Amino acid sequence: MSIVPGWIRSYQKSWLSGDVVAGVIVTVMLIPQSLAYALLAGLPPEMGLYASMLPIMAYALLGSSMTLAVGPVAVVSLMTASALQPLAAAGSADYVHLAMLLALLSGGMLLLFGALRLGFLAHFLSHPVISGFISGSAILIAVGQIKHLLGVKAGGANVLDTLTQLAQAVPRTNGVTFGIGAGSVLFLLFARKYLAPWLVGTGANPNLADIASRLAPMLAVIVSTAMVAALRWDQTAGVSIVGAVPQGLPTLALPGVSLAAIGPLWLPALLISMVGFVESVSVAQSLALKRQQRITPNRELLGLGAANLASALSGGFPVTGGFARSVVNFAAGANTPLAGVISALLMGVVIAALTGLFHYLPHAVLAATIIVAVVSLIDVQTLREAWHYDKADAMSLLATAAGVIALGVEEGILIGVALSLGILVWRSSHPHIAVVGRVPGTEHFRNVARHAVTTEPGLIAVRVDESLYFANSDALLDTVESLVLAQPDTRYVLLVCSAINQIDTTALGVLTDLERSLGQRGMTLLLAEVKGPVLDRLQNTPLGQRLQGKVFLSTHAAFEFVRLNAAVQPSSADKVASASV
Amino acid sequence: MSIVPGWIRSYQKSWLSGDVVAGVIVTVMLIPQSLAYALLAGLPPEMGLYASMLPIMAYALLGSSMTLAVGPVAVVSLMTASALQPLAAAGSADYVHLAMLLALLSGGMLLLFGALRLGFLAHFLSHPVISGFISGSAILIAVGQIKHLLGVKAGGANVLDTLTQLAQAVPRTNGVTFGIGAGSVLFLLFARKYLAPWLVGTGANPNLADIASRLAPMLAVIVSTAMVAALRWDQTAGVSIVGAVPQGLPTLALPGVSLAAIGPLWLPALLISMVGFVESVSVAQSLALKRQQRITPNRELLGLGAANLASALSGGFPVTGGFARSVVNFAAGANTPLAGVISALLMGVVIAALTGLFHYLPHAVLAATIIVAVVSLIDVQTLREAWHYDKADAMSLLATAAGVIALGVEEGILIGVALSLGILVWRSSHPHIAVVGRVPGTEHFRNVARHAVTTEPGLIAVRVDESLYFANSDALLDTVESLVLAQPDTRYVLLVCSAINQIDTTALGVLTDLERSLGQRGMTLLLAEVKGPVLDRLQNTPLGQRLQGKVFLSTHAAFEFVRLNAAVQPSSADKVASASV
Repeated sequence: MSIVPGWIRSYQKSWLSGDVVAGVIVTVMLIPQSLAYALLAGLPPEMGLYASMLPIMAYALLGSSMTLAVGPVAVVSLMTASALQPLAAAGSADYVHLAMLLALLSGGMLLLFGALRLGFLAHFLSHPVISGFISGSAILIAVGQIKHLLGVKAGGANVLDTLTQLAQAVPRTNGVTFGIGAGSVLFLLFARKYLAPWLVGTGANPNLADIASRLAPMLAVIVSTAMVAALRWDQTAGVSIVGAVPQGLPTLALPGVSLAAIGPLWLPALLISMVGFVESVSVAQSLALKRQQRITPNRELLGLGAANLASALSGGFPVTGGFARSVVNFAAGANTPLAGVISALLMGVVIAALTGLFHYLPHAVLAATIIVAVVSLIDVQTLREAWHYDKADAMSLLATAAGVIALGVEEGILIGVALSLGILVWRSSHPHIAVVGRVPGTEHFRNVARHAVTTEPGLIAVRVDESLYFANSDALLDTVESLVLAQPDTRYVLLVCSAINQIDTTALGVLTDLERSLGQRGMTLLLAEVKGPVLDRLQNTPLGQRLQGKVFLSTHAAFEFVRLNAAVQPSSADKVASASV
Repeated sequence: MSIVPGWIRSYQKSWLSGDVVAGVIVTVMLIPQSLAYALLAGLPPEMGLYASMLPIMAYALLGSSMTLAVGPVAVVSLMTASALQPLAAAGSADYVHLAMLLALLSGGMLLLFGALRLGFLAHFLSHPVISGFISGSAILIAVGQIKHLLGVKAGGANVLDTLTQLAQAVPRTNGVTFGIGAGSVLFLLFARKYLAPWLVGTGANPNLADIASRLAPMLAVIVSTAMVAALRWDQTAGVSIVGAVPQGLPTLALPGVSLAAIGPLWLPALLISMVGFVESVSVAQSLALKRQQRITPNRELLGLGAANLASALSGGFPVTGGFARSVVNFAAGANTPLAGVISALLMGVVIAALTGLFHYLPHAVLAATIIVAVVSLIDVQTLREAWHYDKADAMSLLATAAGVIALGVEEGILIGVALSLGILVWRSSHPHIAVVGRVPGTEHFRNVARHAVTTEPGLIAVRVDESLYFANSDALLDTVESLVLAQPDTRYVLLVCSAINQIDTTALGVLTDLERSLGQRGMTLLLAEVKGPVLDRLQNTPLGQRLQGKVFLSTHAAFEFVRLNAAVQPSSADKVASASV
C-alpha cells in the first residue's frame, strides 16, 4: 500500500467541481452540528470545531470510503458525556483533558484492531441491537436537550427523573428562549418535511431541493444569532448564549496519559470505538454500494483510528462517520475525500478567524438542531420489521433500548452485546440436524420428516447442517444418542458431512467419544461426503485412524455399503461381528 | 415429572449390592478429600465434611446422572478461596459466612438457569478453554500446597512470588513434616502408578485393583495420624495438625444475605456455577455413555443447584460433580444415586460421632492428597492434540492456562470465555461461500474452484454453507460485491440456499440492500433451494415481495431460467445482453 492514497494518485480533473461543492455544503451543515454536539458532550464549543478539522484530514488519508463525512456525531457525543460525567465536572479543565484522552484511547484501540485485522469484532453487535441502542440514545439525547429549549436547569439520574424535573421547571420557563427554541424546532421540522417537496413542486432538481433543506439549521443559526445580537436578548431577556469562543487554530499536543486516568476510561473507549465503527461502516457501506465502490472494514478501522488520534492531538473529542452529513456529502456530488479536505480547510478558516460570529448564538438553537437531528434516528421501522419477522431479534432491540434509557448508555450497549452473543451461542447450539433417507429411485437423500424417502434397516443416517464446533457438538451427540436409544437394533450410524466445513477440537473430542461409545454397543460410525480439507485434518487423528474404510464419498455409497453388508450375512446371530465385516 | 425420582420408583433389588459397595468405597475416598479441599478453600475441616453430606442427597433427588459423585472438588475449592481471600481473613467467621453465601448464590443461579432452560450457556466455554483452565488451576493448587509439605509459611500474590518465597523458606523446613508430606506424595504416586498393575499381576480383578489403589489416601491418613498421635509429633516436632474438629451434625440455617455482601460475590458465583456445571456434565456424560444412559443438561442444573443450596443450608461451601470419585463410584458398581445416599449417611455418622479421629491428622498428608489429585488434572494430552489439530484452539488453551497462573482463576476463566466467544464470532463471520457451476450432463452443482463444472454466462451462482445471521451476513455481501465488481457483465446473481436454515433480521436487511443495489446496476438477484420455513417467513417481507418469481426450487431450474432468458434476446447490441450469450 502506497503512502499516497489511491484517490490522490488517480485523481481526475472532472471530479473537482463535485468535491468542491460537496465540501462547501457539508461545511455549512458541519458548523452548527459541531457546536451542538460539543454542547451535548458537555464540552466547550470550540472543541466541536477542532474535532471537525484534523480528523477529516486523517480519515481522508487512511479510510476506504470515498464519501464518508467524519466528525462529531450525536450518539458518540452522548457516550462521551456519559463516560466523563462521573469523573469530572462538565466543561472543567479535567473534563476537557479526559475527553481528549478518550479520543486518544479510542483511536489507539481502533488502530490496534485494524493492525490485528480484527474488523470482525464489529459482528459482536447485531443490527437489531445497534438499532435499539441508537433509538434509546436518541430518546435520551432529546430529553436531555429540552432544558435548553425552556431555558431552565434540569437533569436527573435517569429519563424519568429528568422529565419530572422538567415538568416542575415549566413555570420558570424563559419565554424568549422558549420562543427561539420552539420556533427553531418547528422551522427545522417544517424544512425537513415540506421544504424539499415544495422546492421540487416549483420545478427544482430533487437532489438540490434535498440539499437545500439540509441547510436549514445554518439559516436558523444565522437568523437567531442576528436577532439576539441586535436585541441583546442575552442581557434583556436572559437568553443563554454560546459566548466567547477562543479564536485561533488549536495547538497540537497529545493529552497527558496516566494509568490512573485510563482505568475508568478503557471500557467507555472500547464501547465508543465499537459503536462508532459499526455505525460508520454501515453508512459507508450503504453509500459505496450505490456507486459500486468497496469498503474495507480493516481500512475503516485504520481511518477512524487515525481520525480519533488526530482529534486527541488537536484538542477534540471522539469522532466517527456521521449518517446525515455523509448522505449530504454523497448527494452533493462528492467524488473523493477531497470534499472532506475542503470542509476541513474551511473549518480551519472559521476557527482561525470567525469564531467571534458565534458569540450571540443561543443555546436553544443548538438544542433544537440536536433534537431534530436525533428524532430522525429513532428507528421504529426496524422494530416493526423485526417484530414481524423474528421476535427474538425484536426483543433484543427493545431490551437494548430499554437498557439505554433506564440504566445508561454503557449498560445498554453491554446488555446488547450480551444479548447478541447469547443469541449467537443459542442459535449455534441448536444446529439443524435431519435424519435422511433415499428419494426412491435416485441417489438423492432428504429429510425423512419432510419427504417420502426410504431408509435402510439397521442404519441411521444423520445430516448436520452446520460446521461442528464447541457450541453445537453436544447437540449432535444428544441427537444421535436419542436416535440410537429409540432404535436399539441400529448397527450403523452414518453422519452425512456435506455441510460441515470445519470440526474444531471440542467437536473432534465429541466425535471420538461417540465413535468409541457406539463401538462398545456393537454399532459402527460411518461418514459420508466429508469435504477435502476436513478429511485431510481428520486423517491425522486417532479418530481418523479408527475410521479407516468407513468414510464414503457419497451418501449413496454408504447406503450401498450397508445394504450389501446386511445382505452378505442376513442370518448372523452376532450383531457385532456382522457389523465389522 | 413426579416428585419421586425415576430411579426410586423403578428400583430393583439386584442393584442394591452394587450401590452399597460403591457407597462405602466412595466414602473412604471422600473423607480425606473433603478435609483436604476445605483446607484448600481456606475453610475449617468440618465444612468439607458438611459439604459432603446433604448436597449428595439433594443431587440424588433432582440430578439426572446415575453415578455422579457430588461434593467438594479441587478446582471449585480453589475458586472459592480466590473469591473470598480479598474479602475476609481465611478461616474467620466472616470468611465462613461468605463461603456459605457463595454456595447459596451459586445454587440459586444454577436453579434459575435450570428453570429458564439455559443449559446451553455451558457452550460459552469450549473444551480447550476448560482444559487450559483446569490445568492452570491444578498448577496453581499444587504450588500453593508445597508450603504444607515443608511445614513453612509462604504465599505470594502469584505463582512466581510464591515459588520465590518457598525457595527462601527451604532452610526453615520442618524435617518431620517434610518426611510425612514427601513420604505421602511418594506413596500416593507409587500407589497410583504401580499398585493396580501389581495387583493385576498377582491375578486380581483389574477393576478391584484400580479401586484398591484409589484407597491409598485413606491408608496414608490412617498411618500418619496414628504415628503423630503415638509420637506426639505435633508437640515434639512442631508438625501442624488438623486439631479439634467440632463433633455433631450441622444446624440447618441459610446464611444471612445482604446486598453489600452479594456485590463482590455474584461474578465469582457465576463463574463457579459455570465451571462446576461444565465439568460435572462432562463427567456425567462420559460415564452415562458407557451404559447407554442419558444426561439432561437442564436436570443437571437443577440437581447441582439443589446440591449447592443444601451445602449453604448445612454449613458447607460450593460443590459440584467430581471426576475421580465419580469414576470410582461407577467402577465400584454404583447403579443409582442410592450409592451417594449411602455415602452421605456414612458421612453423617462420621460427622456425628467420629470427628475426634482427625485430631492428629497432619496437614502435610492432606496437602499430599491434594497435590497428587491435582497433578493428574494437568492435561497435556489435550494440548498436544489441539496443537496438532487446530492451532487456534491450542493457543486459547495456553492463553487460558497462562491467565489462570499469571493473573488468577477468575481472570483466567474470563479470558477463556472471551477467547471462546471471539473464536465463535470469528468462525461465524467467515462462513464457507462457494461459487458453483454445473457438473456437465447432470443436475448437480459444485464449487467451481474444486470441480470441473460449467457456468452460465452472465450468471454468478453462490452457495453459502451456513445460516445467515448478523455475524456472517456482511461476509456474504463482501463476497458477492467482489464477484460482481470482477465481472461487471453479470446480469443474474443466484444465491443457492440449500444450507441456510435461518435468516435473522440483520441478514434480511443485508439481503434487502443487496437486492436493491444489484437492481440499481441492472442485475437481478435469484434464489434457489430455499428451505420451506425460511421461504415462509421471507414471503411476508418487502424483500420476499420483490423476489416474486425469482425463487427457484432447484439450482438446475434457476440455471435453465437464466439460459432461456439469455436465448430470448441473442442479438441485442447492449453490452450487458451480449455478454450473457
